[in-house]
Amino acid sequence: MDTHRAALLFVFFLPPFFLACNATAPGLRQAKWRRELATYSGSGLYETRYFTQTLDHFNFNPQSYAKFQQRYLVNRTNWGGKGSPIFVYTGNEGGIELFAKNTGFMFEIAPSFNALLVFIEHRYYGKSIPFGGEDVAYSNASTLGYLSVTQAIADFATLIIDMKKNLTSEDSPVVAFGGSYGGMLAAWFRLKYPHVVLGALASSAPLLQFDDLVSPYTFYNIVTDDFRSESESCYRTIKSSWKELDDTLSRPGGPKKLAKAFKTCSDEVSNLPQWIEEALVYGAMTDYPTVSDFLTPLPAYPVKQMCKSIDNPTSGNDTFARLYGAMNIYYNYTGKAACFDIDTDSLDDTVGTDGWNWQSCTEMILPTEGRSEESMFPANKYSDDDNAGFCESYYGVAPRPHWITTEFGGHDIRRVLKRFGSNIIFFNGLRDPWSGGGVLKSLNPSLIAMVIPQGAHHVDLRYSTKEDPIWLQNVRRKEINIIAGWINQYYADSKF
Amino acid sequence: MDTHRAALLFVFFLPPFFLACNATAPGLRQAKWRRELATYSGSGLYETRYFTQTLDHFNFNPQSYAKFQQRYLVNRTNWGGKGSPIFVYTGNEGGIELFAKNTGFMFEIAPSFNALLVFIEHRYYGKSIPFGGEDVAYSNASTLGYLSVTQAIADFATLIIDMKKNLTSEDSPVVAFGGSYGGMLAAWFRLKYPHVVLGALASSAPLLQFDDLVSPYTFYNIVTDDFRSESESCYRTIKSSWKELDDTLSRPGGPKKLAKAFKTCSDEVSNLPQWIEEALVYGAMTDYPTVSDFLTPLPAYPVKQMCKSIDNPTSGNDTFARLYGAMNIYYNYTGKAACFDIDTDSLDDTVGTDGWNWQSCTEMILPTEGRSEESMFPANKYSDDDNAGFCESYYGVAPRPHWITTEFGGHDIRRVLKRFGSNIIFFNGLRDPWSGGGVLKSLNPSLIAMVIPQGAHHVDLRYSTKEDPIWLQNVRRKEINIIAGWINQYYADSKF
Repeated sequence: MDTHRAALLFVFFLPPFFLACNATAPGLRQAKWRRELATYSGSGLYETRYFTQTLDHFNFNPQSYAKFQQRYLVNRTNWGGKGSPIFVYTGNEGGIELFAKNTGFMFEIAPSFNALLVFIEHRYYGKSIPFGGEDVAYSNASTLGYLSVTQAIADFATLIIDMKKNLTSEDSPVVAFGGSYGGMLAAWFRLKYPHVVLGALASSAPLLQFDDLVSPYTFYNIVTDDFRSESESCYRTIKSSWKELDDTLSRPGGPKKLAKAFKTCSDEVSNLPQWIEEALVYGAMTDYPTVSDFLTPLPAYPVKQMCKSIDNPTSGNDTFARLYGAMNIYYNYTGKAACFDIDTDSLDDTVGTDGWNWQSCTEMILPTEGRSEESMFPANKYSDDDNAGFCESYYGVAPRPHWITTEFGGHDIRRVLKRFGSNIIFFNGLRDPWSGGGVLKSLNPSLIAMVIPQGAHHVDLRYSTKEDPIWLQNVRRKEINIIAGWINQYYADSKF
Repeated sequence: MDTHRAALLFVFFLPPFFLACNATAPGLRQAKWRRELATYSGSGLYETRYFTQTLDHFNFNPQSYAKFQQRYLVNRTNWGGKGSPIFVYTGNEGGIELFAKNTGFMFEIAPSFNALLVFIEHRYYGKSIPFGGEDVAYSNASTLGYLSVTQAIADFATLIIDMKKNLTSEDSPVVAFGGSYGGMLAAWFRLKYPHVVLGALASSAPLLQFDDLVSPYTFYNIVTDDFRSESESCYRTIKSSWKELDDTLSRPGGPKKLAKAFKTCSDEVSNLPQWIEEALVYGAMTDYPTVSDFLTPLPAYPVKQMCKSIDNPTSGNDTFARLYGAMNIYYNYTGKAACFDIDTDSLDDTVGTDGWNWQSCTEMILPTEGRSEESMFPANKYSDDDNAGFCESYYGVAPRPHWITTEFGGHDIRRVLKRFGSNIIFFNGLRDPWSGGGVLKSLNPSLIAMVIPQGAHHVDLRYSTKEDPIWLQNVRRKEINIIAGWINQYYADSKF
């Protein structure tokens, strides 16, 4: 592939994670989200609170004692009071309201557990910014340096211990919930702080997508498999389109032709391949069985719908017309877009690309950018060095690509955890490209892998709908039973 | 008690731990140690190596990337090569050679396990000093700040992973060994890094001597019980001596009288009560059943011997003559001291009071200085505030007395670890005043407490002798069997 696209993809795709959970895609979605968040907040779904957090838990420089205000959301509607369970969402790389909104499962199960709900915002995202604000916090590596996974997890521990004390409910069992990066945090939180958290539901957490644990081709291979499972022709059309796009882009009059074919708002369409790739990747990730509105409003089974548009185009028979139909599914399911603004990456303040870029340059090195010859994307070899070069020039720091496996493990995970640790559910849907880095086999009787062939990215955490298929209802029922088991055992153990 | 003594005791006794494992006592011992260490080192008992270590593992400031040389000792004599076990001593607060010398157990069991032995020095001690040397490293809180427990344990993880890779022996099972503070590190290392270390022998590790987990009177109560178990009169003589010492010290001619009674080298004897207290406390801690030479050369059962001297004095019948006899046991078992230099605290460079003082002022807040009315020491209430005041004025940092329990737990440890974690032996001898903060009941079938009424401070880790009592032989045999069980299970698990 040409270096121009490689570089662009690099910056754009390094944080696909982040993109998965936040609105980096075209602006038409932003306004809607803002409205919905306002509704949630205003409806008393939660109260917003702040905790005075320590900047650095692990060293004792005078600077480490600096404080910042960490935001968390609380819903006490169903709480049974002293000793009753506390369900904590371990916030991802973005404003916490977004995750509260997209984790309906917690709201739905709270009544039957008499549970207090707490959503803790991750440091350096949303309103939880050290150094008085983003201007300073994000200004350089010296202030960004405190944005790290271990610090974030220690924040959760510190906040929860203090909160329980203030509630005089030190004996409440705490269960962590998280999806994607938040799911990794939930699982690691249980493994590292069993004295703070009784168990964790880690949904679509690619805990093994580090170092050399899985092939760097896994991610794009799964995206490919999703589309190929719909039809061979859909796969082939997409696979052959990249060269056609590149050729057309470089031809005189080509960009204008593409602008027309894809109804872009501007004739500047050099980002078009990335824009298409994004729709395919996020379509696969959010290939939910019901109408949804996570990254964008989508029909049920969006991959199937996109392939249908490709295989049975309504406006012309050429590759671009076919692809346009798929894009119209992904980017314009509501039918309201008059044209597509393919360059919009103006970010809402609920999201945190800046933060995730930093994390991707220090410790969250997830080698996913490899693309095999068989994939439907332009082939690409992954190299740690690409990442390192960018990070050193951009931030002046070198990535530590082996740190996550040093701190949290991953190699030989089955042998390591066969006789160590308990009470984690690893949910993965195999439609989700992140599932390639997931824990797909149970590690011991209470470190349980739930693997659902039809599932997409943390589909289990979403609000239920009347259209949910049986398998999804069963997943949630099983999760509820397992969590209830942990809590019952905890209370039984407390009697001694 | 008078504030003068309180202040002195505070500075002196805050790090009793440290004192337990290093030579802070009179100089006559230092020369001997130096000789012995030279012998060990020269005899090829180990090779000295250095690892390039990262200054801060948990944040990504440019400063955190600074490196220092971490020393470790290796003995390959018995190693079976690729895949064979690696036994690691998790170094305490002092030069690592001291701990290698005092952990004969590892050398003795290495042959039957074909084990590689590694003794890793703790950062900021011995030769493992960041910032180019102690002058800078210990100059202020900004450079001392990186001396913390979590950083030290992450050092162990990082070094071991790298070492195994260099040995192309990534599959070797690693077992951690440690005594006292080193025992805490070994246990926490297993709990936090199960992917690096298969199991831990945590000997005399007061993991629960934090926060409000045990009474602050426990430590001195156990010292008292040790002496009282020998004779009621021994207990009463010591208990009544403090007032007599104070009264005499404050009387004209009193110090001279005391100097004569205790054969001190100087008439400046204001430190005499602390010097006596030290002998009683460390005599209790090292109340070994055989002749030993850990903190000082001692006869078998030194507490019994000291009480015999008190109860049956040879040179006069008054309190001071009785106490002098006990001091002569503790400080002059070799009989070579012409007089006692009670003020010597010039520290060998193998030891690290400076480092431990810092750790005692930041996170290693072990409330032990309470003394009950029933104890044989002047009554004293413990308060966190005493500590905080000193630390803030001395280092300009505030202690974080709840941090260790936040990071490593402790509250409700039986409930927390009943169904979490495996492969730790918690050895405690009940003669050891630190046993009050030990894990004295097994937490689950493989988190095993071994409690020996007759045992003293990590007696199990010492070289065996022909005079070892049956109970000590049994303790070591049981430990060997348990460790062998872990390793056999590990190899069996590896077959899948």
